[in-house]
Amino acid sequence: MRLSQYFLPVLRDVPKEAEIVSHRLMLRAGMVRQQASGLYSWLPLGYKVLMKVQKIIEEEQNRSGAIQLLMPTIQSADLWRESGRYDAYGKEMLRIEDRHERDFLYGPTNEEMITDIFRTYVKSYKDLPLNLYHIQWKFRDEIRPRFGTMRSREFLMKDAYSFDLDKDSAVKAYQRMFVAYLRTYARMGLTAIPMRADTGPIGGDLSHEFIVLADTGESEVFCHKDLLEKPIPAPGTDFRGDLSPIIDDWTSLYAATEEMVNTAEFEAEVPAEKRVSARGIEVGHIFYFGTKYSEPMKATVTGPDGKEITVHMGSYGIGPTRLVPAIIEAFHDDDGIIWPVSVAPFEAVLINLKAGDADCTAACDALYGELNAAGIDMLYDDRDQGAGGKFATADLIGIPYQLILGPRGIKSGEVEIKHRQSGERETLPIGDAVARITGLIEPQRRTDI
Amino acid sequence: MRLSQYFLPVLRDVPKEAEIVSHRLMLRAGMVRQQASGLYSWLPLGYKVLMKVQKIIEEEQNRSGAIQLLMPTIQSADLWRESGRYDAYGKEMLRIEDRHERDFLYGPTNEEMITDIFRTYVKSYKDLPLNLYHIQWKFRDEIRPRFGTMRSREFLMKDAYSFDLDKDSAVKAYQRMFVAYLRTYARMGLTAIPMRADTGPIGGDLSHEFIVLADTGESEVFCHKDLLEKPIPAPGTDFRGDLSPIIDDWTSLYAATEEMVNTAEFEAEVPAEKRVSARGIEVGHIFYFGTKYSEPMKATVTGPDGKEITVHMGSYGIGPTRLVPAIIEAFHDDDGIIWPVSVAPFEAVLINLKAGDADCTAACDALYGELNAAGIDMLYDDRDQGAGGKFATADLIGIPYQLILGPRGIKSGEVEIKHRQSGERETLPIGDAVARITGLIEPQRRTDI
Repeated sequence: MRLSQYFLPVLRDVPKEAEIVSHRLMLRAGMVRQQASGLYSWLPLGYKVLMKVQKIIEEEQNRSGAIQLLMPTIQSADLWRESGRYDAYGKEMLRIEDRHERDFLYGPTNEEMITDIFRTYVKSYKDLPLNLYHIQWKFRDEIRPRFGTMRSREFLMKDAYSFDLDKDSAVKAYQRMFVAYLRTYARMGLTAIPMRADTGPIGGDLSHEFIVLADTGESEVFCHKDLLEKPIPAPGTDFRGDLSPIIDDWTSLYAATEEMVNTAEFEAEVPAEKRVSARGIEVGHIFYFGTKYSEPMKATVTGPDGKEITVHMGSYGIGPTRLVPAIIEAFHDDDGIIWPVSVAPFEAVLINLKAGDADCTAACDALYGELNAAGIDMLYDDRDQGAGGKFATADLIGIPYQLILGPRGIKSGEVEIKHRQSGERETLPIGDAVARITGLIEPQRRTDI
Repeated sequence: MRLSQYFLPVLRDVPKEAEIVSHRLMLRAGMVRQQASGLYSWLPLGYKVLMKVQKIIEEEQNRSGAIQLLMPTIQSADLWRESGRYDAYGKEMLRIEDRHERDFLYGPTNEEMITDIFRTYVKSYKDLPLNLYHIQWKFRDEIRPRFGTMRSREFLMKDAYSFDLDKDSAVKAYQRMFVAYLRTYARMGLTAIPMRADTGPIGGDLSHEFIVLADTGESEVFCHKDLLEKPIPAPGTDFRGDLSPIIDDWTSLYAATEEMVNTAEFEAEVPAEKRVSARGIEVGHIFYFGTKYSEPMKATVTGPDGKEITVHMGSYGIGPTRLVPAIIEAFHDDDGIIWPVSVAPFEAVLINLKAGDADCTAACDALYGELNAAGIDMLYDDRDQGAGGKFATADLIGIPYQLILGPRGIKSGEVEIKHRQSGERETLPIGDAVARITGLIEPQRRTDI
């Protein structure tokens, strides 16, 4: 993408309303714009990151055997009356009346609707297990939305729902999502720790939050240091096999949020030198809640013996619009964002130091063409502007590698590569640039970890 | 995808509520489910088609130079008060009050919000031309939603908005979208005719509807026969060059919807043997409307001479959730849907005639693995069920090619291929199947037309 033809409205000043670093950087880098309290437009750069995050989520959901569909944002109030949550949900639910004065709402979550879909079509135990998910906009009318898209009113959520014959099978479904979540965060470069959690308004008796450690995180977490180094389940993991050993391994070490921590237990279970207490951001939440929705909504199947069985359910949420700022909280410095390659809006940026110079522009155009042809997701700063602003923008928007080429380089036949994360710089023959960049980026795409 | 692990709730009976064939087939093929009047869930098969349609739209929008972002579904009423449309829009606008009793609405279109984004960031003529688009859910509270997703209340729309310095440049932006639309429909296998249209509530003085001819279309259209055979602008079309010759070629021949037709003109301009009067479905609508929004909303840039210039705008809509049924209206027979390869939910289906037989299943599993590895988007009917039901399902859901393999074929080393569209059948050695299917499908993917 040529920057001269792109829409990248970076801001020079730090917006006053932004309290946390990810919100400040998302505004400064031209990723989002607030349209009203808790309502954001995703500008082109932000949208591109959001879609890369979404794609990783989809790939790992599909790998685990979950099936994607899409439910509407607007739901009938009647469904929520069936579960009893219409009155219980409170003011966070955005209630709507249509032109015929019928009650609707903007879905804050989809347990009721997916249960309705299930009971309509699924009649036999032979059709289980089943896990259906969608990625759709949700609305929660928070009294005080803040932290940008970290806690917005309209937000994107991946919510999966599992249906099983009994608790044992439902726990297996829960384990599949547990493993899928570990892989999802790892592919984004994040270290996420599963922590036993409260079930809250969703209900149920088994629940984990996934917490990303970040100095600027909203809450305090306590865990065993070895959790930070645990290997991620491999891409070839057999999701139809027994995942218990993986789950046991991950849950055998102490990990708790500040709401759930018991200091005495933490100190008894974890040796002093292994105790980590750090800040964290919740980036996922999974629940097993048995028949809480299937019973009032009569979601049953016929069992092998012909008897009706009320299905056991779980639900599994990840918020892509929250993951984007969470990744920024984990990866930034004073100059801006430092994207992991797998979610970077562009993998590399080519900076033409003298766009007004015909030779320089011809050389840059040629190199840009070659990098594109090699499958690198490229930004090309071809604007006729000073070098200082270009460097600052490239640093701010966090592109992992900068290729810098100007008249002096053209004379010597060399291009400079700056590694955004380490700040390291290297100079190499222009003809070697494509191979070098490909070699740097390819292993970091994390498509096969 | 193994059908035994998929969620494909096909219906045996023709649903009573469905008035048109695409609605009937989408319900029967398990593509959508109505959740409330005009509100649909897209079940996995339907969702997959919808995403293929969306991807083609995105690729052609990007090719033309438009830039993708994403605006929220919920908008502040204040923005619409600026343009004067808040009161004018009427009952089709879904009006919402939040917990603080502030007025919001579910966006039926985005002229106001995109103009607000533009005026916030774009200050100079140097940043023009600019075309920003998004693909987002919209809501129009139709008094009588019908025809399934063809006219639903919540629907997906690709809406692009162009910003230019003057009318001449704005017309060039309009022409780029005109060409992008021709390419978009052609890649879906559709013949779409641009027809001069009324501008309606969007306003402006230049507008075309794109109409797909289909026997079951909702309105009557009149056009010159040669329009049906016109070659589509090539993928290498220079969108920064002069597109007038293409536009002139397409608009020089008579084409009008029943609202716009003038019978005397039609007969005067079109020789009798070239007159086509047929049924059609509107699948896109483009508008140039000058300063209708930029003037009241003060969207201006500084011109080369330092003076403020009010920008000229256009908007360009395509509804993916309407295109899916439109494609079905154009491509079906008594047995079900007949998908063009480029938008088919799966490109081919492998039917195991005897899933209970170990040898047969082993051979089918192996062939399925090879077809997947060859990059064919495969469905695999591995269910332990009778052949008749499998054939009926494959026909109903419209997969372009069926590979049929059973114990008899395994004995003779042969697999049967049924072409869904022509009904033609061929028998060939199992070892030749991958090459044959690849050879059939590859040219129909239409990625490079």
